Amino acid sequence: MSLPLNPAFAATEPPPVMEARRWIAGKSFAPDRPLINVSQAAPVDSPPLPLRQAIAEAALNDPAAHLYGPVLGLPALREEIAAQWSAAYGGTIRADQVAITQGCNQAFTAVMATLAGPGDEVILPTPWYFNHKMWLDMASVTTVPLDTGATLIPEAAAAEALITPRTRAIVLVSPNNPGGVEYPAETLAAFRDLARARGLALIVDETYRDFDSRSGRPHDLFTAPDWDEDFIQLYSFSKAYRLTGHRVGAVVAGTARLAEVEKFLDTVAICPSQLGQIGALWGMRNLSQWVAGERDEILARRKAMVEGFHALSGWKLLGCGAYFAYVEHPFDMASDALCKRLVDDCALLMLPGTMFQPEGSAAGRRQIRIAFANVDAAGIAEMFRRLAAFRA
Amino acid sequence: MSLPLNPAFAATEPPPVMEARRWIAGKSFAPDRPLINVSQAAPVDSPPLPLRQAIAEAALNDPAAHLYGPVLGLPALREEIAAQWSAAYGGTIRADQVAITQGCNQAFTAVMATLAGPGDEVILPTPWYFNHKMWLDMASVTTVPLDTGATLIPEAAAAEALITPRTRAIVLVSPNNPGGVEYPAETLAAFRDLARARGLALIVDETYRDFDSRSGRPHDLFTAPDWDEDFIQLYSFSKAYRLTGHRVGAVVAGTARLAEVEKFLDTVAICPSQLGQIGALWGMRNLSQWVAGERDEILARRKAMVEGFHALSGWKLLGCGAYFAYVEHPFDMASDALCKRLVDDCALLMLPGTMFQPEGSAAGRRQIRIAFANVDAAGIAEMFRRLAAFRA
Repeated sequence: MSLPLNPAFAATEPPPVMEARRWIAGKSFAPDRPLINVSQAAPVDSPPLPLRQAIAEAALNDPAAHLYGPVLGLPALREEIAAQWSAAYGGTIRADQVAITQGCNQAFTAVMATLAGPGDEVILPTPWYFNHKMWLDMASVTTVPLDTGATLIPEAAAAEALITPRTRAIVLVSPNNPGGVEYPAETLAAFRDLARARGLALIVDETYRDFDSRSGRPHDLFTAPDWDEDFIQLYSFSKAYRLTGHRVGAVVAGTARLAEVEKFLDTVAICPSQLGQIGALWGMRNLSQWVAGERDEILARRKAMVEGFHALSGWKLLGCGAYFAYVEHPFDMASDALCKRLVDDCALLMLPGTMFQPEGSAAGRRQIRIAFANVDAAGIAEMFRRLAAFRA
Repeated sequence: MSLPLNPAFAATEPPPVMEARRWIAGKSFAPDRPLINVSQAAPVDSPPLPLRQAIAEAALNDPAAHLYGPVLGLPALREEIAAQWSAAYGGTIRADQVAITQGCNQAFTAVMATLAGPGDEVILPTPWYFNHKMWLDMASVTTVPLDTGATLIPEAAAAEALITPRTRAIVLVSPNNPGGVEYPAETLAAFRDLARARGLALIVDETYRDFDSRSGRPHDLFTAPDWDEDFIQLYSFSKAYRLTGHRVGAVVAGTARLAEVEKFLDTVAICPSQLGQIGALWGMRNLSQWVAGERDEILARRKAMVEGFHALSGWKLLGCGAYFAYVEHPFDMASDALCKRLVDDCALLMLPGTMFQPEGSAAGRRQIRIAFANVDAAGIAEMFRRLAAFRA
């Protein structure tokens, strides 16, 4: 390219999901053995009809649905989140501590941009969510990997050893993408204590919280009266209500932080999609029973994944929960080469651990992420038949 | 705030439109003298019914409308833009040279992030569009102001004198926000030649092109077979089809540039709103006559603005076109203080030139932007009655 290129972009890997799509582009699969795509954490079915009707009704008859709205989102949606979150997490969350974004990826970038500038450092447990790493790379922020070992659960003491004067934040994802593990409440409390002691932000991405297998609240961070001094929560409406194509996410944080987030969102978004916000609000008000059923179904699929890997020789299940299983494969080849082979030999599309680990990581070469939530019981059984028959 | 704050954010002004909204917050206006809000360039009416029906129909019956789509946008929309642009601009624009974004602000940030990193420089004519300046501030990129004098038309020779080894791009907006002026084709050609000679990107934001008063194409930049080596065009669907609440914009650029833009969009957006894209595509295919009528109406309002300011003692019209009039006021007070007075004394909300000029600019203290496109003939006449009666 003859034009200038920000060197931080030249050093940023292309989006992994795009790369994986190229592996299947132009290929055809036998009708009796169609591709099983477990590469992306995305619902494949439509939202329930009443939610679609609510969106259609607003498109037809609500003039505000087509106009700019407030930068930080619809007041009614911010209030609904504040009320439901206060009840669910046993704390006090006000509407002015909630901002709506064009999806949870944008929530992360908006928050992170306010925290860390060029040359600053941010701690990410590995395996990480690749879009987090990409943003930090593009923003010239240094990612400091925190190894989670065989449990996939990070330890605050290990994180503490990585803190330098340039460290600005620690980012956790629970339930974890890609690891599938649910972080214990004690783990999150230990990280909050560490962040508080060292003047860092603790960001917890809870995109998959609606599919947590535990009952009750997943952590106690919101119960502290001064939670907003160090804790920043991210959330997505994409999975719970099948609204991926509408791009609606949220940030829950202190008002001073949201005033900075507002600068980013005004410049990058102006406002979130109004119809998406209307759909999310309708879902929050009307679909709690339906989401509970979705969760039951995903928990059943998770059970099938756990049983399937226990029965599959050589493979090791490292983590399994919410949308993901994260596994170690038994073959003497790198995971990215293996995943390409699995497309051609087994009509299975999975993402290799190399996409979730630092470059050159030995662990990444052994690992694979399987986004199983969209595959029904029959599909999961078929996936295991194909894996059992595979010879490297 | 106790948490870390990116110093670039601390140095970035809050969004001006939010600031202006605070000036009217909690105030009541007499029923016989309601507020005339000419602060934001936003349609206030709904899109035409058939467009709303098209969106509602997709929400109800098109499963893809609720799912993730391609990062760079719906292929059919990219193809439609390529075809219509090729005809309108007399050049060859391919679908893979078009990317869809969540609004034109995002188009700018995505493109600029790929071009300029911390410490780089970008040339912006003054008065500038404040969100451009805000993004550069937040990204630690230095904004180099290019004075446009009394004509509001920038000169390439003056820009050349500002180029340093850190310069990465020149950004033009035509028809201009906030200035209202339409840049002559020769001006754009001269900037393209300069950018090409000096290895810079020329970004032209054509958000308001559908309301250009000139017939035929506004410039010849796309007629060059190698236009994509230096020229990057930005566009918005918000104004033409009244889709502000859906957030749909576009980038037209070379494929290598779009591969870099894709990294940003994957991380910040994942994909644009599907319903917004469906609406934009329907509009492109069905509303060209309707948009022509909208343009006629705005041109009539523009004429009323020109005549009104010619008849208004002391005020000077610097530029007028598309959505905006940009004026010099006659009073011995700064424009931001004056605009607050105009709210209280005249029930008029306008944005002061201080929001569009570098801090401390003498010009900014004299100037005001009036986004007149949403005010009908009666409203424009009333605005001038109130301005004529105002005493500082």
